[in-house]
Amino acid sequence: MSFLKLNQNIGISVSICLFCYDNDQKKILTVINNEEPYKGALILPTKILNANESLEDVCSEILKYNIGNSNIYVEQLNAFGKLYRHPNGRIICISFYGLINLEKDKVNLNVKSGASFTSLDPNIDLAFDHNDMIDMALKRIKRRMKYRPLGKNLLPNQFTMNELEGLYASFLSKKFDKRNFRRRILEMDFLREIKKVQRNTRGRKAILYEFDPKKYKNYSRTGF
Amino acid sequence: MSFLKLNQNIGISVSICLFCYDNDQKKILTVINNEEPYKGALILPTKILNANESLEDVCSEILKYNIGNSNIYVEQLNAFGKLYRHPNGRIICISFYGLINLEKDKVNLNVKSGASFTSLDPNIDLAFDHNDMIDMALKRIKRRMKYRPLGKNLLPNQFTMNELEGLYASFLSKKFDKRNFRRRILEMDFLREIKKVQRNTRGRKAILYEFDPKKYKNYSRTGF
Repeated sequence: MSFLKLNQNIGISVSICLFCYDNDQKKILTVINNEEPYKGALILPTKILNANESLEDVCSEILKYNIGNSNIYVEQLNAFGKLYRHPNGRIICISFYGLINLEKDKVNLNVKSGASFTSLDPNIDLAFDHNDMIDMALKRIKRRMKYRPLGKNLLPNQFTMNELEGLYASFLSKKFDKRNFRRRILEMDFLREIKKVQRNTRGRKAILYEFDPKKYKNYSRTGF
Repeated sequence: MSFLKLNQNIGISVSICLFCYDNDQKKILTVINNEEPYKGALILPTKILNANESLEDVCSEILKYNIGNSNIYVEQLNAFGKLYRHPNGRIICISFYGLINLEKDKVNLNVKSGASFTSLDPNIDLAFDHNDMIDMALKRIKRRMKYRPLGKNLLPNQFTMNELEGLYASFLSKKFDKRNFRRRILEMDFLREIKKVQRNTRGRKAILYEFDPKKYKNYSRTGF
C-alpha cells in the first residue's frame, strides 16, 4: 500500500449538525468536549473515523451514542479541511446535517456526553470550526426551503398555520406578513386542511393542517 | 497527537469533475491512470493529499498539472468514502466540480498525464467510483440549472438561442420545443439581445445574445 503514501498523518473525523424545532425555536444538538484541546467546550457531536468504518457507520454511531437513536436521516454537508482547524494536527472533518422531530423520533439524550439541544438564538459559540459548519448547514437548509417543502421532520403531524409560519420564520430568520405567508404556502400546495380545529389558550379557533404525504414527497424530490 | 488516534491508515485523495461544452457536446476532463490498480484506465484527475496541503491547494495543483491553468473556480461536491472504493486500502476521496470555457480559459492539456476532454455521450467508463462522481456532479448541475442561470462558463461571450438551447438540452438530457425554450429562457431574464446578427452556413440570420452580467450574478446568488 506504500505507493498510496498512506500514513499521511491526516485524521478524519465526522461531525453532525442535527437540528430540531422546539418551543418555537430552532435548536442544534451539542455535546461537551471531553478532551484537550478545548476541553469542556460546547462542540458538535464528533467522532474520529477508523479505517474499517464507513462514513454512514460513524454517523449512526454518533447518533446512537448521543441521542440513543441512529434511525435519523442525515445528508453530507461538506468536508472541512482547513490546515489549522485542529490545533493538534491535521484533521479533516466530514460533516453531515439532518433534522429531527422531538415529538416523533425517540430521543434519549446521553448525560455522559453532555448531549443537549441548544438554542441557536442568541448565537452560540462552539469550539473548532463547528460554528462554520452550523452556518453552512443553515444556509443549505435556507436554500432548500425555497424550492422544497420543509417541516415534516420538524413539526408534529398536525399543526396550525402559525406554527408553520414560526418554523419558516425561524429557519429563514425572517418575519412574515401573516396573510402573505398563508397565501404563498397554500400556493405551494403541499398542505392538507384537516377538519379538526384547535382552540388556543384564548379560546380562538385555529385550523389544523397536515402535510400531503404524496405531494410532500414529490416536491422534495423535484422541487416546486 | 496520539489521543487523536492518527496514523489511522486512511488516505485522502482529491478528484475534480471539470466539465466543458465543446462541439455541441458536454465533455469532462479525464486522465490516464499511471499506476496500479487499473493502470491505463481512464480516471478523473486525482491527487493524494499531504498533511501540509489544503484541499484548495490540491485542486490548484491538479488543474495546473493537467490543464496548465489553476485559475478555474471549483466547488466541493462530496466526500466519497465507501469502504472498498480503492482496492489497495482505505482512501476517502473528496471530489470537486467545475465548469470551464474552452474559448475563454487558457488550457494547455498535459500530454504526459493523458489529459483530455472526453465526451460524456455515449457514457464513458472510468475506474474506481469516478463514474459515480460524474453522475453526482451532473445531478448537482441539473438541479442548479432549474434555479440559477447557466452558460457563462461554458459558452462564448456572444451566442445564438440555438447554442444556448443545445447547452441546456445537453446538460439536462432533454429535448426542447424551440419556441417554448426561447420563451422560458427570456422569461428568466438574464439574457441581453445584441444588435449584431450571425449568419449561419445557409445564410439565415440568427440573433446573438449575451448574458446580462448584473442579472446573471444576482440570479446566481439568489436563484430565480
